[in-house]
Amino acid sequence: MAYKENYPSKLLEEAVDAISSLPGVGRRSALRLALHLLKQPQENVHHFTAAIDHLRDEVKYCRHCMMISDDDVCSICSDKARDHMTICVVESVRDVMSIENTGQYHGVYHVLGGIISPINGIGPSDLTIRELVARVAGLVSPEALFEAEGQGGAQAEVILALSGDVEGETTSFYIYRQIAQYGVKVSSLARGLGFGDDLEYADELTLGRSIVNRQIFRP
Amino acid sequence: MAYKENYPSKLLEEAVDAISSLPGVGRRSALRLALHLLKQPQENVHHFTAAIDHLRDEVKYCRHCMMISDDDVCSICSDKARDHMTICVVESVRDVMSIENTGQYHGVYHVLGGIISPINGIGPSDLTIRELVARVAGLVSPEALFEAEGQGGAQAEVILALSGDVEGETTSFYIYRQIAQYGVKVSSLARGLGFGDDLEYADELTLGRSIVNRQIFRP
Repeated sequence: MAYKENYPSKLLEEAVDAISSLPGVGRRSALRLALHLLKQPQENVHHFTAAIDHLRDEVKYCRHCMMISDDDVCSICSDKARDHMTICVVESVRDVMSIENTGQYHGVYHVLGGIISPINGIGPSDLTIRELVARVAGLVSPEALFEAEGQGGAQAEVILALSGDVEGETTSFYIYRQIAQYGVKVSSLARGLGFGDDLEYADELTLGRSIVNRQIFRP
Repeated sequence: MAYKENYPSKLLEEAVDAISSLPGVGRRSALRLALHLLKQPQENVHHFTAAIDHLRDEVKYCRHCMMISDDDVCSICSDKARDHMTICVVESVRDVMSIENTGQYHGVYHVLGGIISPINGIGPSDLTIRELVARVAGLVSPEALFEAEGQGGAQAEVILALSGDVEGETTSFYIYRQIAQYGVKVSSLARGLGFGDDLEYADELTLGRSIVNRQIFRP
């Protein structure tokens, strides 16, 4: 049955409009949430909205890896103990959090901010691929290699940790074509993940295994 | 599996804390919503939070029926065409919207703002029962009855439209005890099978009530 909407108040209707714009929240759930917020103390509601405004207004992105950060450089990129010659390329902030939770990875990241998806109008230029290429070029510069020698001569590596669906594979292939010229090692996650599995929903064991058993990218 | 939480940003963590305080929203969904909001244009996010703040700060409650309203008196209570001698007592704003959507009711409402629930620490004084009793007393005042005579002498009626569970029944009984002295007609919602309900799946209590309260068949 269609749910006719005769809101008793314009304010309520506008709040429901706003809340139902969130992904996965229908108008009925939005009404429930709006009425819940209405019952809360005023300062709690202000705290709620202020937390969201602060996030949107004040969040920064690490200038190296594009990760959400409170500073110009994120805690991972500024960690000297991590392997800065290994860059793990992921789609989103959530993927970084998921991989960090496995405790299996000690390199740095690069957050693309999305995935190449013609159907959604997302092309390579909408992602941080140019920045990634510049980072890879920097990794193989004479200075960087000299510094790495001092650390035991680690080889630069790019891990393509994207989803196993068509869009993920397309994006991996596109990035591979862009960075192959620099002679870095390019690997992708071991497919312990099922095809079509979403990275963020994988359990830590599977995801951790996928990182340890990453394989040379052969397009 | 526990989801370890190493937020890359304090701002993000605070937003997730706030969003996950909503009923039915876990921390994982909250993270998804926070990252969604982060991707939206800044003015959209401000519009979102402002709509919620406005609702909480500026909403009014009808001084007659306690319904959410943009004015001191809601659109239902200020509608002369409705039957002001019939008061339908409901738990919440949503119940008013549901009953209005049926198009079958032409009286006015009284929103209790909850239901008597000792287990949740909600007693009669937390609800708008005192206001309801005052309204009922007003309905049977000599002036009101004189006015009603002019309209065809309608009898005052209170419909207890509360849930059919123990708390709803308790609240109905409590209200009945409070208003019985005024000699108004007190009714409750018909309980029975829903439209399209399968007889074999109905619980015995409902089915039993449906048989006892059977109605003349009018095809």
